[in-house]
Amino acid sequence: MNVAILAHGKFPNDAKTAVGICRYGDQNVRAILDREHAGSRVADHLPSVADAPIVPGIEAVPEIDDGSIDALIVGIAPIGGGFDDSWRPEVVGAIERGCDVISGLHYFLDDDEEFAALAADYGCEIRDVRRPPDDLSVSEGRAGDVDARVVLTVGTDCSVGKMTVSYELVAAARAAGIDAAVIPTGQTGITIEGWGTPVDAVVSDFMAGAVERMIVEKGADHDLLVVEGQGSIIHPAYSAVTCGILHGAMADSLVLCHAAGRERVHGYEAWELPPIPTYRSLYENLAAPVHESEVVAGALNTSHVGDDTGADDGDGGDGGGGSDEAARRAVEEYEEALGAPASDPVRFGAEPILEAIR
Amino acid sequence: MNVAILAHGKFPNDAKTAVGICRYGDQNVRAILDREHAGSRVADHLPSVADAPIVPGIEAVPEIDDGSIDALIVGIAPIGGGFDDSWRPEVVGAIERGCDVISGLHYFLDDDEEFAALAADYGCEIRDVRRPPDDLSVSEGRAGDVDARVVLTVGTDCSVGKMTVSYELVAAARAAGIDAAVIPTGQTGITIEGWGTPVDAVVSDFMAGAVERMIVEKGADHDLLVVEGQGSIIHPAYSAVTCGILHGAMADSLVLCHAAGRERVHGYEAWELPPIPTYRSLYENLAAPVHESEVVAGALNTSHVGDDTGADDGDGGDGGGGSDEAARRAVEEYEEALGAPASDPVRFGAEPILEAIR
Repeated sequence: MNVAILAHGKFPNDAKTAVGICRYGDQNVRAILDREHAGSRVADHLPSVADAPIVPGIEAVPEIDDGSIDALIVGIAPIGGGFDDSWRPEVVGAIERGCDVISGLHYFLDDDEEFAALAADYGCEIRDVRRPPDDLSVSEGRAGDVDARVVLTVGTDCSVGKMTVSYELVAAARAAGIDAAVIPTGQTGITIEGWGTPVDAVVSDFMAGAVERMIVEKGADHDLLVVEGQGSIIHPAYSAVTCGILHGAMADSLVLCHAAGRERVHGYEAWELPPIPTYRSLYENLAAPVHESEVVAGALNTSHVGDDTGADDGDGGDGGGGSDEAARRAVEEYEEALGAPASDPVRFGAEPILEAIR
Repeated sequence: MNVAILAHGKFPNDAKTAVGICRYGDQNVRAILDREHAGSRVADHLPSVADAPIVPGIEAVPEIDDGSIDALIVGIAPIGGGFDDSWRPEVVGAIERGCDVISGLHYFLDDDEEFAALAADYGCEIRDVRRPPDDLSVSEGRAGDVDARVVLTVGTDCSVGKMTVSYELVAAARAAGIDAAVIPTGQTGITIEGWGTPVDAVVSDFMAGAVERMIVEKGADHDLLVVEGQGSIIHPAYSAVTCGILHGAMADSLVLCHAAGRERVHGYEAWELPPIPTYRSLYENLAAPVHESEVVAGALNTSHVGDDTGADDGDGGDGGGGSDEAARRAVEEYEEALGAPASDPVRFGAEPILEAIR
């Protein structure tokens, strides 16, 4: 599938979905729509993925062999999941070019009268991947019964790289001959995999049940399931999602994901992050009465370690830059605080994490 | 408002909503529909509330002055919130008598084609109180800023009496001259109060935000807000709801509610309840990074202490029976385990709890 990805003003550092698809999706990304970064190329920002032009709008997406891309993917996930009306011409333009539109926003594009009518006229599909199934129910507490080993990526905050770590870990496991799969719980993972339940859009009572259903469905097909975690257990707004995944997944092992240098809750800067050992005991103590889960490894996002600003800007992926030596030191410090092996799976590979969960 | 309450087979012990309305609502309860207990009276089961007959079905609800009751309330909340089709004739019969229907089920009666069409024909209203507002958003972390003192009832399990404790505590506060109000988060509280958000039916991402909005709205109107808690932080299915309320409410004080003799998760008997001190540290440690909250008191449901069976059947209210002496001992043991003052507010009054939160 040939796609363009909408990421106005945010590529790559605040465009988690766009970066995730560039890195782990099997779609051919033909262009990124970002009016602020137009003129540069994907390779200027993400050296390790297939290159593509960054263009100012849908009308500038280059023609390809059969005339047009197949789909426009909304590759930004703003806080609250709203739709920015300045993106409207891109969606309209895409549909008028005959493209499907794939979106993970809480605002369902298929409920938008203009988009829905236009899509009907042009025979295009609007896929709101954050719309949950309508037949969910409460958990029966069965996720712990599956044969597969279940690993859950948990975080010190939002946007620290849980989705990235999940994919890197599965890739490392497959390279080691293990039949592994990601259990996608967010819009990016679902867009990449083509299935999954957007747990943050599920009614709270059915949260754990939604996670359980995915694990039970896939538990016989694979030897290792890596559940993509969401949010953080101390997040002022999103902790309910994290807690529901923790108890619904009944994971054997947890991987604690953190962004080097992050000191305050991303977007909620009045709140300081507690020390790393506090996270470890919070996650383990909260999991234990439902299912014993141990934090066996850490994943540290060092993408901004040693770069010019030294700043952590809330990017869940690698923004490039930084020195490996400083990053290595940051990983060692993180290991010491955590009391478990750690790695930056993007920079140094996921093998130390894989080793710890086996 | 004159009402009948549907509680087939469950009154009073498994009919939380029915009992809550009998005890704390300002509706006139004219009959309970319970085909298994038909022939007995409310006073036989709940000595402390207004009496009414228990009848086998809607057709047996006695006529009142102006001919009929105003509304049928669904007073049972089964696990999962589904609609039992054996109740269908009661709802149909109520509408055909010109009654409104009020329901807190996850299954929305207003979406049921038969009920909706019939309600339109008869000019009746169907109120699904568990349908959340459609304009919710994520928490901004503002609940901690309100002037009112905020108390949250948390639990060791579902159906231990959090709603009951919230109402008893507010009643005790009002009797002591304190301007206090309940923040209702479940179907019973919402039915009693006539407003509120059913947080377990809210999309997970908006859970904390839904609680925050209620507290911010009421924070200037009262001196004490008692937030009705839901579920338990270690519940295999419902912990997400509990966690979202804990962080969304940013309570100053927590009251830990427990049912004497409860040893396993109600409805999930494979899971043992952890010791009381574990709950205390779990709730306090989880709350602290967002907002410091201390468990300052306990509430123990002793309704089955010393009765013939000695069994705890998951009733959130008082089922009557039991000896005060045995109950007093149970409260003392609970105080010791908790390390804080406690009471059974139904049996012994909420004053010790009120004293602890002031």
